[in-house]
Amino acid sequence: MAVLVVIFTVEADDLRVLLIRRSAEPFRDYWSLPGGLLAPEESLDAAAARKLQEETGVTDVYLEQLYTFSDLDGRGSVAVSYFALVNSRRAKLARRRAWPPGWFSIESLPGLAFENNGVIDYARERLRAKLDYSNVAYSLLPEYFTLSQLQRVYEAILGRPLDKRNFRKRMLSLGIIVATGRVAAEGAHRPAQLYAFRERKPIVF
Amino acid sequence: MAVLVVIFTVEADDLRVLLIRRSAEPFRDYWSLPGGLLAPEESLDAAAARKLQEETGVTDVYLEQLYTFSDLDGRGSVAVSYFALVNSRRAKLARRRAWPPGWFSIESLPGLAFENNGVIDYARERLRAKLDYSNVAYSLLPEYFTLSQLQRVYEAILGRPLDKRNFRKRMLSLGIIVATGRVAAEGAHRPAQLYAFRERKPIVF
Repeated sequence: MAVLVVIFTVEADDLRVLLIRRSAEPFRDYWSLPGGLLAPEESLDAAAARKLQEETGVTDVYLEQLYTFSDLDGRGSVAVSYFALVNSRRAKLARRRAWPPGWFSIESLPGLAFENNGVIDYARERLRAKLDYSNVAYSLLPEYFTLSQLQRVYEAILGRPLDKRNFRKRMLSLGIIVATGRVAAEGAHRPAQLYAFRERKPIVF
Repeated sequence: MAVLVVIFTVEADDLRVLLIRRSAEPFRDYWSLPGGLLAPEESLDAAAARKLQEETGVTDVYLEQLYTFSDLDGRGSVAVSYFALVNSRRAKLARRRAWPPGWFSIESLPGLAFENNGVIDYARERLRAKLDYSNVAYSLLPEYFTLSQLQRVYEAILGRPLDKRNFRKRMLSLGIIVATGRVAAEGAHRPAQLYAFRERKPIVF
């Protein structure tokens, strides 16, 4: 029994996924999703959290079971996939490999091992849907952020521009973020209000 | 590797789930969800569809992977759960057992084997959420139905009454059902329009 983890971040206004380079057959030298076998008596959730920590050093982020696949390797193995949302500034990528892991834009992925491209597509669809009815974006953002930063994260995930006024109105009406009273200077513009998520844990609305 | 299938129906305005009686230890004589091991080289989806057919005789119904559990049996086994929506009038329950399977109201379930009560709660939550953004109810209804029948199915799943006018308006505005031109006599009332789902396959809106 194996777990696979699709670890997303938003960096440079771009939705990216963490890939590692395989050092063994099959698919030697191909990029793939991090994953591995369950340890003895380890639960699926614990195995996914362990893989996430091994690859990024973070633990307190959004992590959800995605789907269980029967035959990604063409040999009938079962793999339980998860997806996680990580602020890349907090992540410390594992350095132990000859080929270090990297954040790849989901717009230009290479051909991956074990049909992992399909797993990533599926995870992106789930993530897009979740933006509509949950606060999961908290896990991609720093503690304090401007509404522009928040909007850029949403746009990166959705893959399309959003109307600024409607976006702000909706975010504020949902009650999931609060003004902190702090301000941030953004380039040459006037100082922008800093916001924070009311809860930094998953809320569905 | 095992699959479990939560098979829902709506009967007598009541959301019900199909349970079978265990004939072997552990949990001998307890009611439980239908399930079993994958056959050699069988995919998860195929195993779930096979269990559904074995228990109900039906194949062309809504069936979706739900969640994968690590430790329902307290011994670390992994079980991939599915849920299905079946029109009970079409189902022909398996009769081979000393204790025939039965449709149990989810409002009054007995204590089930292997923490199956938690699996059913989880499936009901998923089903309730899906009513909001998909046409999955098609799988619970006959080909032709009145808006009152449709509303009673929604109410049984949601566990609360719905406003008749708003319900009708929403259903018609979604464009997932169409008037057939036929009518049905409903008791002493005037004949009611019969509707049909535009598509009898899953649509997300």
